[in-house]
Amino acid sequence: MLYPNNIKKQYNKQINYANRGMDLEDLINKTNEYNISINKALIYKKPTPIGVVDVSYSKEGKKIEKAYFKEQSTLDYNGLYKGKYIEFEAKETTSKTSIPLKNFHAHQIKHIRMVIEHKGIVFIIIKINGLIYLLKGTDFIDYIDTHERKSVEYDYIKNKGFLLKENYLKGLNYLDVVDEVFIGG
Amino acid sequence: MLYPNNIKKQYNKQINYANRGMDLEDLINKTNEYNISINKALIYKKPTPIGVVDVSYSKEGKKIEKAYFKEQSTLDYNGLYKGKYIEFEAKETTSKTSIPLKNFHAHQIKHIRMVIEHKGIVFIIIKINGLIYLLKGTDFIDYIDTHERKSVEYDYIKNKGFLLKENYLKGLNYLDVVDEVFIGG
Repeated sequence: MLYPNNIKKQYNKQINYANRGMDLEDLINKTNEYNISINKALIYKKPTPIGVVDVSYSKEGKKIEKAYFKEQSTLDYNGLYKGKYIEFEAKETTSKTSIPLKNFHAHQIKHIRMVIEHKGIVFIIIKINGLIYLLKGTDFIDYIDTHERKSVEYDYIKNKGFLLKENYLKGLNYLDVVDEVFIGG
Repeated sequence: MLYPNNIKKQYNKQINYANRGMDLEDLINKTNEYNISINKALIYKKPTPIGVVDVSYSKEGKKIEKAYFKEQSTLDYNGLYKGKYIEFEAKETTSKTSIPLKNFHAHQIKHIRMVIEHKGIVFIIIKINGLIYLLKGTDFIDYIDTHERKSVEYDYIKNKGFLLKENYLKGLNYLDVVDEVFIGG
């Protein structure tokens, strides 16, 4: 495992039955590991960037003694699938009606616009009401550009998004949706 | 600047005139920032992965109190250029005759093979004898598969590689070579 639990983002999760089971990030990491293992895609979570304040040196090598987490200015996952550049972000919300845009940093939204412009495949995976949707980057940006709201409504996600399925072995079927929606086949 | 100097890889550099000036990693970071700023390509250095041992919480948020650097299992740089997936590694050596293969981890070499298989653009940027070359991933792998040696000889790099140019403003012209060699144009 490349990214141990202790460097994962902390989600402010309500403990309820809908949220039982694996959290979204674990599920996507597991999916990506499975896809690498069967040589289907090369998609990885980027390491969380840190700022190192202090290091020490010992026989075991260089150690970080003080550091802080920094914000990712791009999206969390990227890689290669069928010759195509893929990048996406995963977000879960406990709100039942919308996903707040404060979950996305301004530079991430700008980055999504740039990936679209440079002809990459870009999307958001959103877990809301216990369901997981893939929302195309273009639909996400369209919403932001045409709504004054500070969140993306669940109705929009349901209408424009693609409902994903979980499989115990294979994880999340998001590449099937990529095939269908972005690649065509 | 996304990645401050203190989390850069440390190079065991001899101080000599050939190595004067910006080191290779700084030069590539500067190049990538320039290319992002003129909206030419979206290529980033991946953050160095770390393993967190201990954290603390305070008013300022979560802080890392102890951690260690981990090895990157993929290559250091990846991104999107003209709709294409790009991934590469940068290495400099003080040897005048070859670049030792111990500079590359086994999982990185395996990863290069996989990027080729999945039709991504993959290469190595090598600084040797004060010159900077782009060596295609396929030529790098060919060498490994057909030689018993533990290093890639300078002669091979000179013959198969493409000499890169530095520009004070634009950085390194590696995307020109990508155009010529991989994309065709």
